[in-house]
Amino acid sequence: MQTKLSSPKKDVTIGDDQPTVLIGERINPTGKKKLAEALKAGDLEIVSREALAQVQAGADILDVNVGTFGVDEVALLPKAVRMVMDTVDVPLCLDSSNPEALEAALKVYKGKPLVNSVTGEEHSLKRVLPLIKEYGAVVVGLVQDDEGIPKDAERRVRIAHKIVERVEAAGIPREDLVIDCLAFAIGAEPGSGVAVMEAIRRIKAELGVNMTMGASNVSFGLPDRELLNNAFVVMAVAAGATCLIVDVAKVRPIILAADLVLGRDKRARRYIEAYRLRPKPDRQ
Amino acid sequence: MQTKLSSPKKDVTIGDDQPTVLIGERINPTGKKKLAEALKAGDLEIVSREALAQVQAGADILDVNVGTFGVDEVALLPKAVRMVMDTVDVPLCLDSSNPEALEAALKVYKGKPLVNSVTGEEHSLKRVLPLIKEYGAVVVGLVQDDEGIPKDAERRVRIAHKIVERVEAAGIPREDLVIDCLAFAIGAEPGSGVAVMEAIRRIKAELGVNMTMGASNVSFGLPDRELLNNAFVVMAVAAGATCLIVDVAKVRPIILAADLVLGRDKRARRYIEAYRLRPKPDRQ
Repeated sequence: MQTKLSSPKKDVTIGDDQPTVLIGERINPTGKKKLAEALKAGDLEIVSREALAQVQAGADILDVNVGTFGVDEVALLPKAVRMVMDTVDVPLCLDSSNPEALEAALKVYKGKPLVNSVTGEEHSLKRVLPLIKEYGAVVVGLVQDDEGIPKDAERRVRIAHKIVERVEAAGIPREDLVIDCLAFAIGAEPGSGVAVMEAIRRIKAELGVNMTMGASNVSFGLPDRELLNNAFVVMAVAAGATCLIVDVAKVRPIILAADLVLGRDKRARRYIEAYRLRPKPDRQ
Repeated sequence: MQTKLSSPKKDVTIGDDQPTVLIGERINPTGKKKLAEALKAGDLEIVSREALAQVQAGADILDVNVGTFGVDEVALLPKAVRMVMDTVDVPLCLDSSNPEALEAALKVYKGKPLVNSVTGEEHSLKRVLPLIKEYGAVVVGLVQDDEGIPKDAERRVRIAHKIVERVEAAGIPREDLVIDCLAFAIGAEPGSGVAVMEAIRRIKAELGVNMTMGASNVSFGLPDRELLNNAFVVMAVAAGATCLIVDVAKVRPIILAADLVLGRDKRARRYIEAYRLRPKPDRQ
């Protein structure tokens, strides 16, 4: 299944036969005090800098999230989206838990964006899916529902089925849905790694949809977070995740290696090119 | 399924519910000019040093291979095995393509060793399996047969079935067999990564045996080999490989991360302990 996104100048295809698509996560004030302060002051210069840095690091898509206490997302999200569109060429992922902010951002976006996100909760399905249909966008479906956040693989799979049904009932083609199986901090939820990998494999087999995965949460509270995130994303991609919401500069090298192992990098061109461009430690 | 190995002072268990067992690959003259020269001269001091360094790096088992042009393995392998037994406490993997050398090493080994290897070739099955039975050892079964080395998953699985049948017909319990799905250089064989992962998953599902994997070949001819090896071993472990023949110092950190994601490291104890002991880059 192929999911297509676009900006005025770039098309991006997410699919099993494609290299893993990397969505830059860094325009998001959660846990970033400086960015949160700047957003509250309406200062978008740091957003523009983060956009540029992530695309230079190899991001295929940028997530734009301005949600933090004291920010009017309905006003600020479209401004931030315009700022990022003016700075870089890649398609964007419009990210907010506020449907009004999503709609305001959809109005200014040029092309076919990703929208982050709808859940399996009734209020979310009812409010967000009509927007996706109206604006012809692609939506991330988070596998949580009115009963809460699932711990096991089984409930994740069931919620994914529900979201697919509701998406199709709303007249949105299945390829315009990307399921997120929800990863948790492994230090706090030791079984969640296995549950997520099993859910990815089953959803891929049963529904065929594209899947995304955030990586940075899984290592929360543990040392050497980059190492743990790397192991996690490699497994997620091997299990069937076709795009990742990540810190691209940190994750891209090992994902290029994973794509090469999985036969998604003909003649190792992307792998070798990235190696050539990467700064090397001094070798004496 | 649990595979048990032992030395006089240590037991090692390989199994799905266990942390991944790491077999140190560095006592092997292939591609190591200095070690090859020393072995030809009958000098085993470097073997002793490599043994100690690998155990300090976290090796659970050490592979001992002295096969190189100009060496009489039947005479030297038992000597090297004795030297390693005198130096470290971990169980050993007796590694030779020469059955006489394997037998000579089995005679001096104390405990239950791993023997590397038998293949699906008739001459190998007939010569090696009686030794495994007689000495009560565990054997690595390489998935190649008289028709050669397999390129696809299907032939790997078929040869694994054949080896299991022959092992059991020889009176050896299935848990005393560890299948090696044979990884090739991905630069030369771009489809081999996918074939190996599929073979591991299918052999695990159909036969339930423990599986090992060498990692260092896969990156042959490509840059940043450690990165590619790391991505490969993480996928192999997630697919079902329960032990790895690797350069332990390089691979152990990400395998501890993989074990943690897979729920094989209660309270992240091994992961955190290894992090604490690891030398850190200066943080300014």
